[in-house]
Amino acid sequence: MIERRVGIVGYGVMGRAHAYAYRTAPLVRPHDTRFVPVVMSGRDAERVRDVASVFGAESECDWRALIERPDVDVVDICTPPGTHAEIAIAAAEAGKDVVCEKPLALNSHEAEAALTAVRGAGVRHAVGFNYRRLPALSLLAELVRDGALGEVRLFRGTWLSDEFVDPATPFDWRFDRSLGGTTIADLGSHLVDLATWIIGPISAVAATSSTFVTERPAPQGPRPVEIDDASSALVRFASGAQGTLEMARSAPRRPCDFVVEVNGSVGTAVFSYARLNELWVGSTEDDPHLYGLRRVRAEMPSHPETGGWWPVGQGVGYDASLVNQAADLAAAWPDDSYDPDFAQGAAVVRVCEAIEHAAEQGRWVSVEPEGVAHSSG
Amino acid sequence: MIERRVGIVGYGVMGRAHAYAYRTAPLVRPHDTRFVPVVMSGRDAERVRDVASVFGAESECDWRALIERPDVDVVDICTPPGTHAEIAIAAAEAGKDVVCEKPLALNSHEAEAALTAVRGAGVRHAVGFNYRRLPALSLLAELVRDGALGEVRLFRGTWLSDEFVDPATPFDWRFDRSLGGTTIADLGSHLVDLATWIIGPISAVAATSSTFVTERPAPQGPRPVEIDDASSALVRFASGAQGTLEMARSAPRRPCDFVVEVNGSVGTAVFSYARLNELWVGSTEDDPHLYGLRRVRAEMPSHPETGGWWPVGQGVGYDASLVNQAADLAAAWPDDSYDPDFAQGAAVVRVCEAIEHAAEQGRWVSVEPEGVAHSSG
Amino acid sequence: MIERRVGIVGYGVMGRAHAYAYRTAPLVRPHDTRFVPVVMSGRDAERVRDVASVFGAESECDWRALIERPDVDVVDICTPPGTHAEIAIAAAEAGKDVVCEKPLALNSHEAEAALTAVRGAGVRHAVGFNYRRLPALSLLAELVRDGALGEVRLFRGTWLSDEFVDPATPFDWRFDRSLGGTTIADLGSHLVDLATWIIGPISAVAATSSTFVTERPAPQGPRPVEIDDASSALVRFASGAQGTLEMARSAPRRPCDFVVEVNGSVGTAVFSYARLNELWVGSTEDDPHLYGLRRVRAEMPSHPETGGWWPVGQGVGYDASLVNQAADLAAAWPDDSYDPDFAQGAAVVRVCEAIEHAAEQGRWVSVEPEGVAHSSG
Amino acid sequence: MIERRVGIVGYGVMGRAHAYAYRTAPLVRPHDTRFVPVVMSGRDAERVRDVASVFGAESECDWRALIERPDVDVVDICTPPGTHAEIAIAAAEAGKDVVCEKPLALNSHEAEAALTAVRGAGVRHAVGFNYRRLPALSLLAELVRDGALGEVRLFRGTWLSDEFVDPATPFDWRFDRSLGGTTIADLGSHLVDLATWIIGPISAVAATSSTFVTERPAPQGPRPVEIDDASSALVRFASGAQGTLEMARSAPRRPCDFVVEVNGSVGTAVFSYARLNELWVGSTEDDPHLYGLRRVRAEMPSHPETGGWWPVGQGVGYDASLVNQAADLAAAWPDDSYDPDFAQGAAVVRVCEAIEHAAEQGRWVSVEPEGVAHSSG
Repeated sequence: MIERRVGIVGYGVMGRAHAYAYRTAPLVRPHDTRFVPVVMSGRDAERVRDVASVFGAESECDWRALIERPDVDVVDICTPPGTHAEIAIAAAEAGKDVVCEKPLALNSHEAEAALTAVRGAGVRHAVGFNYRRLPALSLLAELVRDGALGEVRLFRGTWLSDEFVDPATPFDWRFDRSLGGTTIADLGSHLVDLATWIIGPISAVAATSSTFVTERPAPQGPRPVEIDDASSALVRFASGAQGTLEMARSAPRRPCDFVVEVNGSVGTAVFSYARLNELWVGSTEDDPHLYGLRRVRAEMPSHPETGGWWPVGQGVGYDASLVNQAADLAAAWPDDSYDPDFAQGAAVVRVCEAIEHAAEQGRWVSVEPEGVAHSSG
Repeated sequence: MIERRVGIVGYGVMGRAHAYAYRTAPLVRPHDTRFVPVVMSGRDAERVRDVASVFGAESECDWRALIERPDVDVVDICTPPGTHAEIAIAAAEAGKDVVCEKPLALNSHEAEAALTAVRGAGVRHAVGFNYRRLPALSLLAELVRDGALGEVRLFRGTWLSDEFVDPATPFDWRFDRSLGGTTIADLGSHLVDLATWIIGPISAVAATSSTFVTERPAPQGPRPVEIDDASSALVRFASGAQGTLEMARSAPRRPCDFVVEVNGSVGTAVFSYARLNELWVGSTEDDPHLYGLRRVRAEMPSHPETGGWWPVGQGVGYDASLVNQAADLAAAWPDDSYDPDFAQGAAVVRVCEAIEHAAEQGRWVSVEPEGVAHSSG
Repeated sequence: MIERRVGIVGYGVMGRAHAYAYRTAPLVRPHDTRFVPVVMSGRDAERVRDVASVFGAESECDWRALIERPDVDVVDICTPPGTHAEIAIAAAEAGKDVVCEKPLALNSHEAEAALTAVRGAGVRHAVGFNYRRLPALSLLAELVRDGALGEVRLFRGTWLSDEFVDPATPFDWRFDRSLGGTTIADLGSHLVDLATWIIGPISAVAATSSTFVTERPAPQGPRPVEIDDASSALVRFASGAQGTLEMARSAPRRPCDFVVEVNGSVGTAVFSYARLNELWVGSTEDDPHLYGLRRVRAEMPSHPETGGWWPVGQGVGYDASLVNQAADLAAAWPDDSYDPDFAQGAAVVRVCEAIEHAAEQGRWVSVEPEGVAHSSG
Repeated sequence: MIERRVGIVGYGVMGRAHAYAYRTAPLVRPHDTRFVPVVMSGRDAERVRDVASVFGAESECDWRALIERPDVDVVDICTPPGTHAEIAIAAAEAGKDVVCEKPLALNSHEAEAALTAVRGAGVRHAVGFNYRRLPALSLLAELVRDGALGEVRLFRGTWLSDEFVDPATPFDWRFDRSLGGTTIADLGSHLVDLATWIIGPISAVAATSSTFVTERPAPQGPRPVEIDDASSALVRFASGAQGTLEMARSAPRRPCDFVVEVNGSVGTAVFSYARLNELWVGSTEDDPHLYGLRRVRAEMPSHPETGGWWPVGQGVGYDASLVNQAADLAAAWPDDSYDPDFAQGAAVVRVCEAIEHAAEQGRWVSVEPEGVAHSSG
């Protein structure tokens, strides 16, 4: 048994979810390598200690202290996005492997710096695009890869939440552009990652953004919101496919309703997160007398990311995406690389940044492919 | 009983559907004014005669002859879009009221000419955006108008069909740009009309278009396809709302799946054509303990466009949109104007044209508001 | 063109729906034979005249007068169930063909008398189980007939309405057992007909019934309700299959939600009326990697009862069941017999009666097969 | 921190699921009392050791040895149903608290013996009806308890699986009546428990059972199947409500599709396991203009059994039912009793047995209320 000792920076929803996943993964998909959360950090000493103790971990108040601990092999970054790159770079410089929550950074400069750092230090790196590890989405990607849908032509992804609907929600880090980043970066990065993973590189984008609630209550009086409530983008893929992305935190009674659809030359596949154990699939090769999409229960032993889970029909929840991520990390490290890594995370950041620029400038923006400097990665 | 005698130009799917609707409307929603199909025209004498006889109508082989008939009060144009404006102008000049299938024209020049003609002739005019007459969509518009969703912020409309998926489908008028127009004009015009009707004028658009099957079998060998298989657009509304539109005839196993969603400051409403008797509605004012969208059965006596139809739960089909359109025309004419009229039809054409330009030119395009010349309409 | 002149007894919801269907059928599925509603009857002279005039028909205040009219070839009975047999017998004796709304009668004695009458008179006879004419249900029956589901083992049918939920709904003929009959007879007869049609004869039943609102407001004070609000039954088929039936008019916010599922040795098919253009189908012979039911759009040209209707994806409504029934009648008569006829209608009555007895007596009740007297029918 | 050391008898799907739940519960809902799996037993030494080691537990080959271990406080029984009572009695006699998977026993005699044993020994007792711990079902029960649906009138529960569809599935303990029990006992016991929990005692039942595949491959040649593939029941509740239950393992492409609906005098609630994070709710008190059921996302902080889980919209899976069960046990014991306990488990067995008798004897069977002997429990 190889234990990889993880220090988790952050103890909010994502920090706890990652700690949960590390503890649970060995119960579902036991492996010779096991990630164990040994320490969590956060500024509120008492609260971080309480959370950490739930997961059998110690606590630190300073993430730098966490990184320096000799009993930490892997640093898992679950802080607001604006802090990701700095922490990742510090962790890499301390020789630690790094798992970073999405998005890798809030701009391509920082993302590239983080990528350079991990490559320079020769440490392992991963980005937490957990939805790739949902069985149904993983099956969708597999169907595309296997050609079951033919040549992919259209992608559409929407992510609707109502997180920002209430104008009385006070200003916090999520509205601070340098800390939380845009809705494009927060929700859109998932869609961009899925689109890129399933179809390939995005080459150009057009976009529009809106901030409907322009200021939010703050202790010193109303404070201007620095980010978009909602954005939409058109995307062109290098392959010739095209797509639409929409990410909104201003959709009442839409808690986390994300939908992804792919139309290829011979088939269609649709995923709706609200029914996360299903994938809808149809093909022109199906008997026309039974024309229509099939609601595939994405829980079969033959489906990816279902190993160790429940019998078909029982269903998994959100946690399965994170538990599978933890299990896949354990299976990949220390011997192999993990997908998605920082290079892929940086590619997502470049697309998100291009969407931000396209919205600000009211024009199509090309997405810069990864530079020569990174080609050896 | 006032009989308005209708001559229907065209006897294909839409010509028959309109004839059906005129015959059926008086059975569902009887009114003092009744539209009666008296003649249908088409180039194949035998076939048009057969179709016309089903609806108790005579037939003509030349639409000009139909227009000139003294027993025709109303000309209803159900031909390919590229012919709409010419026929509408001729009908207006002959002093006939005009109902024109959507889109009114394939470019704004023609649309404006048609609008000028009906205004100049002082005849009544209507465009067949029949989906406005579906109870569920009409209820959606009513909820917005009544403020039930608050200030509208986001609109998303998709229209997916698989009409063009099979590369073996031979070239016909639908692939001929000057006759059938783009997928933007065909499917997109419905979405643009709904968006405009529900929210208000669209002021600017960005778009992308693709033709995946670039040539089609034709008697003299493969012929280049002149239009898009699929297009997507970002739209900005004059009100400050934003939206996405997608129209595709290249989505396998998606026969006519159109979905419209509106997110306002306090509520959400979603319509999916595959379940056309339902409207999903949620509001921030609903009890949070019952958080979620409600599947409203849009068949209540209190709902628009349900008069004369079946008891709640029985459901209507596609025909209800056309029958209601015929009934509403009968109720509106000859005394009142009908919505949508040619001015609205022309506005839709301007948006579709802007989307086409935006896609061709790779830039945001402003939508020209109706000129001063038309303000007296 | 053969015109079969129809006299419709009753002008309520069903009378109007039948008249609508006779007028509309020739527009959808033109045929050499055409049923034309020429007269409708009802006790309120003014109201029946108003309704009849909508359908181009004359009116009578006495159904006996309607039957006697020489210009009536077919009598279509749309009155409360308790009157069906008497009217059917009178029509048969007058030499008229008879279409009778379901259920044929409220007890097997009356049903048998009606059957004897039409057979004795040598007139044609049909019972209005219109749902057999819905494309999706017709497809379900066809799949079973073709063996696509294997040997049928399980049937389940539920019909939920909220017609009787409100205790303030006053007493009317629906609560009068001799006139409206039980909920078993009203809603259950459809389920029994479908079950019998799809699978075959029911041989034994057990049942339970409840009346939750035991009295209803009436002009002379509260009046006892004589029928069940809700009933459930277990059924055994002669084939060895078994099933459950449930019919309830006491299900809040369930307007007409009827669901039918068949499980065979190799396949499953599910129909839900709220999505009447769909049939869900799955088979053990499907690729297990795509395990799940397929949502078949029951609108394909290869599907039964879709002729003349709209392109796939557009969808039909409740009226299609009645219009198809009228078209099928036109196609069947005068040359052929029509399914379901009075023999089948009487068989349904026997099952419904057995369910009533089973509920009253708290025991399993065998369903009497049709007697020898009828075997020559 | 109080640790309650659990010995799990059995290491199959349920044994592992329970072990998983005990390990996971403290991560989701930490509590002063914690259940820790310390040992698992099974006849195959190597395999049970492998499974147990995943959960940090030791292993035994003999359940009697497990029970006798001084480091076991709680015995959790996850073996085939026919063995439950014997093991439970032995555990009670050894002074251990007992958690028993459902059903408590395969006949009321054994169930009563188990109940007598735990009461006599004064040990704590619980039955693993885990679905009570699903947020959506728990919310349904709460709504009923709070009167939101009014007086409950109708219950319908169906549980469809395809476990037994393939006739090539060999004979194993599930087909051995004395070991696995009937489908009524296996699937039906969940439905009976939910019905009883939500509505109250069942007083009488009628039923029908079928065995479609009458023999199964076995090493010594085909062996007769001793149980039902599918059964249905009518139930009468002491309250005056009525219901239907159906349990089938012969429904192709229905993996574990269980649906529960309750209709009360003012409201309806529907749960479908395939969408386990949703509860559909409607009330006559809702605005009729928004007539229809609401799809409640049963993930709100105000909902039962959601504590510690993910933000609304993220969703839980099957495991949540077991993890919540483990957490609720930890919260209840050692100070309080736990619902459902053996008395409730025995009540479920009495109903299941009555259903078996009703099916065998073709008659309604009264359900015996708990005897006087148990009233002091």
